[in-house]
Amino acid sequence: MSNVLQIAMQAKEASSQLAISSAEQRNRALLVMAHALMAKQDEILEANAADMSAARTKGTGEGLLDRLELTPARIKSMSEALKELALLADPIGEVVEGRTLPNGIELRQVRVPLGVVAMIYEARPNVTADAAGLCLKTGNAVILRGGSLAIESCIALTRVLSQAIESAGLPANSVQYVESTEHSAAEELMGLHDYIDVLIPRGGAGLIRSVVENSKIPVIETGIGNCHVYVHEAADPTMAKKIVVNAKCQRPSVCNAAESLLVDESVYQTVLPPILKDLEESGVTVFADEPTRALGAIHRIEAATDADWGTEYHDLRMSVKVVSGIDEAIKHINTYGTQHSDAIITEDYAASRRFLHEVDSAAVYVNASTRFTDGAEFGLGAEIGISTQKLHARGPMGLTALTSTKYLLMGSGQIRE
Amino acid sequence: MSNVLQIAMQAKEASSQLAISSAEQRNRALLVMAHALMAKQDEILEANAADMSAARTKGTGEGLLDRLELTPARIKSMSEALKELALLADPIGEVVEGRTLPNGIELRQVRVPLGVVAMIYEARPNVTADAAGLCLKTGNAVILRGGSLAIESCIALTRVLSQAIESAGLPANSVQYVESTEHSAAEELMGLHDYIDVLIPRGGAGLIRSVVENSKIPVIETGIGNCHVYVHEAADPTMAKKIVVNAKCQRPSVCNAAESLLVDESVYQTVLPPILKDLEESGVTVFADEPTRALGAIHRIEAATDADWGTEYHDLRMSVKVVSGIDEAIKHINTYGTQHSDAIITEDYAASRRFLHEVDSAAVYVNASTRFTDGAEFGLGAEIGISTQKLHARGPMGLTALTSTKYLLMGSGQIRE
Repeated sequence: MSNVLQIAMQAKEASSQLAISSAEQRNRALLVMAHALMAKQDEILEANAADMSAARTKGTGEGLLDRLELTPARIKSMSEALKELALLADPIGEVVEGRTLPNGIELRQVRVPLGVVAMIYEARPNVTADAAGLCLKTGNAVILRGGSLAIESCIALTRVLSQAIESAGLPANSVQYVESTEHSAAEELMGLHDYIDVLIPRGGAGLIRSVVENSKIPVIETGIGNCHVYVHEAADPTMAKKIVVNAKCQRPSVCNAAESLLVDESVYQTVLPPILKDLEESGVTVFADEPTRALGAIHRIEAATDADWGTEYHDLRMSVKVVSGIDEAIKHINTYGTQHSDAIITEDYAASRRFLHEVDSAAVYVNASTRFTDGAEFGLGAEIGISTQKLHARGPMGLTALTSTKYLLMGSGQIRE
Repeated sequence: MSNVLQIAMQAKEASSQLAISSAEQRNRALLVMAHALMAKQDEILEANAADMSAARTKGTGEGLLDRLELTPARIKSMSEALKELALLADPIGEVVEGRTLPNGIELRQVRVPLGVVAMIYEARPNVTADAAGLCLKTGNAVILRGGSLAIESCIALTRVLSQAIESAGLPANSVQYVESTEHSAAEELMGLHDYIDVLIPRGGAGLIRSVVENSKIPVIETGIGNCHVYVHEAADPTMAKKIVVNAKCQRPSVCNAAESLLVDESVYQTVLPPILKDLEESGVTVFADEPTRALGAIHRIEAATDADWGTEYHDLRMSVKVVSGIDEAIKHINTYGTQHSDAIITEDYAASRRFLHEVDSAAVYVNASTRFTDGAEFGLGAEIGISTQKLHARGPMGLTALTSTKYLLMGSGQIRE
């Protein structure tokens, strides 16, 4: 039996024990996990130092190194997050709906764990603790596989967390890590349809596309965001400028940051120059259509190609296009966007309603920054990720995205006639 | 451009028009569709006669021929089903939840269509009208592909329904049929991740497995049911007999019929013989373990192999096994079952609760026949199918299974600090 198959079978076994655990047991385990991270931080930091040193030898870039590095402060923050999870309301066991059928059978639809969750992610050790906590909270066993650069850190974190879970009386195999860095291990994992209920990739577009293409297990796609701000002709120019700059610049590396700006042709000559100047002052390079460039408002501006409309820059670049009106804006967003987060700036009632209903995205805004698409901002408590697919969960996913339901039926001898 | 790709692009275009249609428009279209089926039944029956004749030439079996055949009564029943759909409450636009965020943004999560649904099914023309109606009701465009034996019937039905939809002012491409019977057409369809939001296979285990293995589009698995009835030691023997016979024999060809009977060893010698005799009288052939056969209660009994525990017979056959108690019963069901519908017969409170919570199936029963797992019986109105997966929908799926949600956010200039 392969190691990956064995892990999957052990996860399924653990999941059936977790499914009958109480919220009290699971919350206690989360607190023990939080404590263990602090108590064993030397062991974790040592493993991370090995990863960092190997990554530096390979000439890994600063951005990746920063995401890979663990510090006492970062371990404390993982530990605090686990404590906060323990305090959240338990979604398991909630009666979603119910009724007594005409034949007297009492029917309840109740919320249950999904079973076994697999997470494939990049070289970010913190996702290990985060995913382990979210899955344990919701009564799921989890199989983790992070990027190979983080292997020692992830193995150490998984060992510490798994021991903590076991010491709290729940199965050690509730959290397991696929240690093989071979591509074939990930492929095998994606084929274990009989043991794994859902696969959640977390990372860049390449990782997610590869998982969607290859997985035979249901996937929840997360986090690709080519987000738009559309400045309608009836926009308040000051509000428009403030929102565009915030949506692009407040944290450009995240998925809810804006990548593309659309402006109505009836107002672009007056509304756009001050926005472009503010973007330039914030360090943004603009890729624009011909009318925008002809304004001559800024220096750091280049000609946009068709590829720019579909690009998630993830940095201080933004595409800018003049559109004929709301029809073209909506069509452009639905064509080039990734159905993540898109905003209109307008004081026009009818335009606001059309945009809300016709833009086919997980989160659609009127007069607010796209940067709010986030589980905490939406009031969901914990966040698993942001789904950009339409099945199961869409937009920021709270704990219920890691649950399923079952029907319980209590009868007194009913048969079907 | 291939024909399948063109169909998918047309479906996406139609879906954006459907997404902004009103419930009134869609319900009116359903009534026009219902009327068109009756008005054009000669054209449909003629196409069906061609399919029937070709199928007979190929030596198709009676069961398949029966499912393939259309009669005036069956067309009427399809038409009536469309009228009933028009009367159901509209799920689109429902506010699932909402709140005002601390920063003043008003957030609503509203129910929206999925977009484009593809259905792959067997040679059952009635699924064509059924799927077209359910998808139109929920504002989705649908791409249909039935088994090749039903090709002429399905094309005629799609033509009639599509014309009816167009005459009601909605896009003709709301309902399209993939006419190519080549395997490559189905494969291409399953790869069109950018245009199709969900794929629902309806049919036997082979069809569903092939779709799950090959689709790059999210799939909802439906309808495989290896259902169990477990007679606990504290069962009422009369109730047990009545439920077992009903679950097996009332309609053995459907997915919620029982395929396997488990009986506690402490009672099997007294409880099992009358059940076996009733099953034999109802024409059932039993595949049993050694203790059951040693009872010598009936003649039509054979030795069960390990494969029998995992087999969905779909006819008058049933596997029977003596188990040591509830632990073994639950373990057996979770190992060999298909997470569809399973029942315990018991008068013991603790056993009933353990079974409900530890059997990992979409519908778990105490003291009732598994045959009730059905959208209509559960009070869901229309039924799309019965999901045996845990993601998105589980158990009988009503109209909401064909919907997604989106977040609408209305602000007044909020930016993220």
